[in-house]
Amino acid sequence: MIIVLKPGISKKQESAVLHEIRRLGYRPHVMRGVARTVIGAIGDERTHRSLEVLMTWPQVENVMPVQRRFKLVSREAHPANSTVPVRGHVIGGPKLHVMAGPCSVESEKQLLTTAEAVAAAGATILRGGAFKPRTSPYEFQGLGEKGLKLLDKARRATGLAVITELLSEQHVDLVAEYTDIIQIGTRNAQNFQLLIAAARTGKPILLKRGLAMKIEEWLLAGEYVLANENPNLMFCERGIRSFETYTRNMLDLAAIPIIKQESHLPVVIDPSQGVGRADLVIAMCKGAVAMGADALLIEVHPHPAEAWSDGAQQVTLEQFARLMQELKPFIAAAGRE
Amino acid sequence: MIIVLKPGISKKQESAVLHEIRRLGYRPHVMRGVARTVIGAIGDERTHRSLEVLMTWPQVENVMPVQRRFKLVSREAHPANSTVPVRGHVIGGPKLHVMAGPCSVESEKQLLTTAEAVAAAGATILRGGAFKPRTSPYEFQGLGEKGLKLLDKARRATGLAVITELLSEQHVDLVAEYTDIIQIGTRNAQNFQLLIAAARTGKPILLKRGLAMKIEEWLLAGEYVLANENPNLMFCERGIRSFETYTRNMLDLAAIPIIKQESHLPVVIDPSQGVGRADLVIAMCKGAVAMGADALLIEVHPHPAEAWSDGAQQVTLEQFARLMQELKPFIAAAGRE
Amino acid sequence: MIIVLKPGISKKQESAVLHEIRRLGYRPHVMRGVARTVIGAIGDERTHRSLEVLMTWPQVENVMPVQRRFKLVSREAHPANSTVPVRGHVIGGPKLHVMAGPCSVESEKQLLTTAEAVAAAGATILRGGAFKPRTSPYEFQGLGEKGLKLLDKARRATGLAVITELLSEQHVDLVAEYTDIIQIGTRNAQNFQLLIAAARTGKPILLKRGLAMKIEEWLLAGEYVLANENPNLMFCERGIRSFETYTRNMLDLAAIPIIKQESHLPVVIDPSQGVGRADLVIAMCKGAVAMGADALLIEVHPHPAEAWSDGAQQVTLEQFARLMQELKPFIAAAGRE
Amino acid sequence: MIIVLKPGISKKQESAVLHEIRRLGYRPHVMRGVARTVIGAIGDERTHRSLEVLMTWPQVENVMPVQRRFKLVSREAHPANSTVPVRGHVIGGPKLHVMAGPCSVESEKQLLTTAEAVAAAGATILRGGAFKPRTSPYEFQGLGEKGLKLLDKARRATGLAVITELLSEQHVDLVAEYTDIIQIGTRNAQNFQLLIAAARTGKPILLKRGLAMKIEEWLLAGEYVLANENPNLMFCERGIRSFETYTRNMLDLAAIPIIKQESHLPVVIDPSQGVGRADLVIAMCKGAVAMGADALLIEVHPHPAEAWSDGAQQVTLEQFARLMQELKPFIAAAGRE
Repeated sequence: MIIVLKPGISKKQESAVLHEIRRLGYRPHVMRGVARTVIGAIGDERTHRSLEVLMTWPQVENVMPVQRRFKLVSREAHPANSTVPVRGHVIGGPKLHVMAGPCSVESEKQLLTTAEAVAAAGATILRGGAFKPRTSPYEFQGLGEKGLKLLDKARRATGLAVITELLSEQHVDLVAEYTDIIQIGTRNAQNFQLLIAAARTGKPILLKRGLAMKIEEWLLAGEYVLANENPNLMFCERGIRSFETYTRNMLDLAAIPIIKQESHLPVVIDPSQGVGRADLVIAMCKGAVAMGADALLIEVHPHPAEAWSDGAQQVTLEQFARLMQELKPFIAAAGRE
Repeated sequence: MIIVLKPGISKKQESAVLHEIRRLGYRPHVMRGVARTVIGAIGDERTHRSLEVLMTWPQVENVMPVQRRFKLVSREAHPANSTVPVRGHVIGGPKLHVMAGPCSVESEKQLLTTAEAVAAAGATILRGGAFKPRTSPYEFQGLGEKGLKLLDKARRATGLAVITELLSEQHVDLVAEYTDIIQIGTRNAQNFQLLIAAARTGKPILLKRGLAMKIEEWLLAGEYVLANENPNLMFCERGIRSFETYTRNMLDLAAIPIIKQESHLPVVIDPSQGVGRADLVIAMCKGAVAMGADALLIEVHPHPAEAWSDGAQQVTLEQFARLMQELKPFIAAAGRE
Repeated sequence: MIIVLKPGISKKQESAVLHEIRRLGYRPHVMRGVARTVIGAIGDERTHRSLEVLMTWPQVENVMPVQRRFKLVSREAHPANSTVPVRGHVIGGPKLHVMAGPCSVESEKQLLTTAEAVAAAGATILRGGAFKPRTSPYEFQGLGEKGLKLLDKARRATGLAVITELLSEQHVDLVAEYTDIIQIGTRNAQNFQLLIAAARTGKPILLKRGLAMKIEEWLLAGEYVLANENPNLMFCERGIRSFETYTRNMLDLAAIPIIKQESHLPVVIDPSQGVGRADLVIAMCKGAVAMGADALLIEVHPHPAEAWSDGAQQVTLEQFARLMQELKPFIAAAGRE
Repeated sequence: MIIVLKPGISKKQESAVLHEIRRLGYRPHVMRGVARTVIGAIGDERTHRSLEVLMTWPQVENVMPVQRRFKLVSREAHPANSTVPVRGHVIGGPKLHVMAGPCSVESEKQLLTTAEAVAAAGATILRGGAFKPRTSPYEFQGLGEKGLKLLDKARRATGLAVITELLSEQHVDLVAEYTDIIQIGTRNAQNFQLLIAAARTGKPILLKRGLAMKIEEWLLAGEYVLANENPNLMFCERGIRSFETYTRNMLDLAAIPIIKQESHLPVVIDPSQGVGRADLVIAMCKGAVAMGADALLIEVHPHPAEAWSDGAQQVTLEQFARLMQELKPFIAAAGRE
């Protein structure tokens, strides 16, 4: 910790700060600058962060943490890129993966039609929500276990791997039985009990960024997964909240190079939630691929206008096939397969 | 739903929209304006919202929902103010209540000292975290059941009622056994499974606003509680995320008159989380009282510098006693007791 | 400046940083902590801030400024409260002032009716826009000099002082000739050339906060006024931009105690722009008064529905008179007149 | 305008609304829905917007504008792409342009060295600030006219066109004399007087987005340029303000496809200001090119650590040359030259 003192304070006020720093288990180191005196408090901030309380002392101007708070997810801890194995596929390696499918699993016909189409267009992983977190209790909440069974059926029919969202600690075993990747959604990104329970299944985890999550907080939420002995984590940017009303969210593509710099884990981009408008999805995908995303998560529906959730952001089967074609030169330019 | 068409589209493009509206179960009503044609789609938006998908049609400029999506929490549903009974106290009535206590329960001595002091100063409800949601897995996670037992002991010693946070569906019965009010924290404000489980205990619920939650979304999260047959809900504003870095969060005091206008339920303000600096707490409390808050939730600790969590935002016992004195004229000015 | 080095770097990489610090004119001071090495760079950051460039060096983890960048507006520079004299009134003293009037000056009748009503209700300063910054070029842009003349007429008829907005360096002399306070609006809060020109007139300046301005940036914009030898500055909070759509802006009432802590200058609150809804203005005023605002800036119009700008946020003459009555107990509770 | 009435209001309350709509010059059109009555108010919203005032009537739930407020910048007004001619170059055509150079013009040597290097690497336009808007009055404010003369010298030496920022209405003629493109910076994005004065020079205008500007507001600011008879406008996204602290701003790349959809004018991306960190600039450039940007604006400095402003975001000459190489496959993939 760095403690900045106000100018013009008395010797006694300075001593009180030094005494408090020692009392809390740190070793103070005083530096006298041109306009301010600064104290370095030497000790491990991760075991006890209480020096922040000094911020409210009248003689203290600022208290600044020095250490990064995340460890296992950091590139320091693991300088090479990590990869996540999913049913024979490798995420985070040379191949760019596309996870595609409907927002919600609605029926066998809807799911199988979509699965076959996205597989034919080149996707390797099928997405589909069986348990849906809905802003209103009066909206469709998902087919539950029946949806999971349909995902399994589609997997067997197409060879696609499956990703689906986990909403509740009560469903951990059930969801883990059917899915290849457990998705933790944006509303549960800091539901640490759910993260711990999901991590302990050993399944690969895709952790979406919360709507108002700083990157440091997102990395720390990921730390809950690795600290519970599950190394198979992917970070998924899906738009943060901003003042702009033209799009549903603001997709922060800078998160790709930042996560790559700070962490060794793969980065996935969800442009469908990210902007909430099907007509912008393809442009966002091109940007994501060019900037180094390891995978894309795209909502696809045979008839978006009839979707039971989030119709406006789902692309049709035809649009998806065209999108996969249009991405090819950008995938090549990025040096991916 | 209101659908705004682009100017200059063909008759055929307009017909396609009308046909789609009918196909989705709505009755279209066309209005021709000076520069735009507008279609009202008559039908209940709460059963099927899929008209939003029209936003991505090339001939459509905008799609705007008309209905409010919340029902049971709305003032329409219940024009008079609701009150919430808590161990003989009434929240939302003429008396302003103060809920006070440490961020985390740390020890018997810490909790009892605080409880006695806040009771003596006029608080009626004791707050204290036994299960703590922490940004990092390496931070103190709470005493768990031992903390709940200490809260019970403090309740018996002082007569204060108790509020504590529920973090996990696994702990619902345990927490409900000990607490008088179940707090749902900001990170779980859209953890709907947790909200439903908490609602079903029948205990009063204090629902904090999520960091990036619009007021409509917050009211809809509250709707999950009332729709699960628990009428005893309080909304607690505790600061939203903004670009300002001087304070930890931005306390949105306008939420008080807005919730009072839109809903019949009580409003609680948490200035400690709201600004994250003990030196600003008293000013925020004065504003909250003047603007009509029904209760305050204040973090108090005998020695904030030694607190195991969030030391910078906890006031001392002496500061709390002074705060309660300084609030008196504002409580009187607001016509409260 | 504090420079935090990454762990595990080589001695040579550390030397390169030390060399660069010296080369840029600072004296380095090394502190070795438990997990990180930290370097204090001793020197005046206000003359040359280029150490921030070290942030992009691979061996550097973070660079943190230590000094506050504002000087003349800071409470350090002037520990007592400053007051601003306006035509015999004193802003920032024991008396709470109310500045009231229409958003735009529209006609002699509209302005005089309003001026007489607000004076009768207790306002001391008349607001009214003669030059209006409008989001669209097709909206009413103000009456210009004719509006200024009407403000002068209203001043002579009622004894109220006058505040009006300055939009352009071309109008500085003209506006200064007619107004008692020059308002710099939110869109020009970092139009430094305009601030300098306004400061040099010697007139009191009311500086609104920009929509996305951090408090430090706002204080620094104020520094432009004092550095150009005009001590008569007031800071006016008028709502910042957020994701919430219920209100037009988010009024940050915490700015009151923060500005009071960091600066010696008066704070004014504009609840009309702040929330953009007349039905919330009174609640916001109560909060502002309780929290220590020195003055309020309120939009009042005889017939808001017929206003040429911002009708939704202007209160009627009757509502204003009632508001002034309802504020009385809060003004008394705050120890003001 | 669409006016949504509250449910359960009286016939008389409804009539009052209808009467007011007529009185304000609109023709009301009533639609009775399942749960709400909705009124369409037929008339031109651009001439008189005062219906918004109805929002504060107790019987009204919401008032929603129907028309887009921008005209000349809209794609409706001009379905084909517009191009902007700059000294023989065409911006908005098949060729992707790169504008590069130092944040501030500091000396002849610094500028000429940079100009030659960026020209050699493929840039066509030289950027460089002669008048600098600085957050603090104590920071370097630019060389002024001397800087403009150096830009002219560099132009003659290299054949590059020149872009520089205009800060003040007092400098319009001076800056227009030397520059090929007038840049309006983020702090002046809604300084409409400056926009009008710049437009009237007839020079191409590059309009940066304000830190908290919605896209609609940005388009409307651009409307001020076209409405003042200057068709040569470019929109430049340079990062908006968000809660994230890892980067200086949040670069909103979705603005590229949105501006392309809503407007016919070229889009430029400034990744240097956008993220504020040289180490992320290249990734942002790749995304921008892939998503369809017409030009890039990149800060380049021979020795960023010695820069007089914004060192942390300027790339070196070597980094810039490498960046231009690395962009090539993405430019080709995007179908540009």
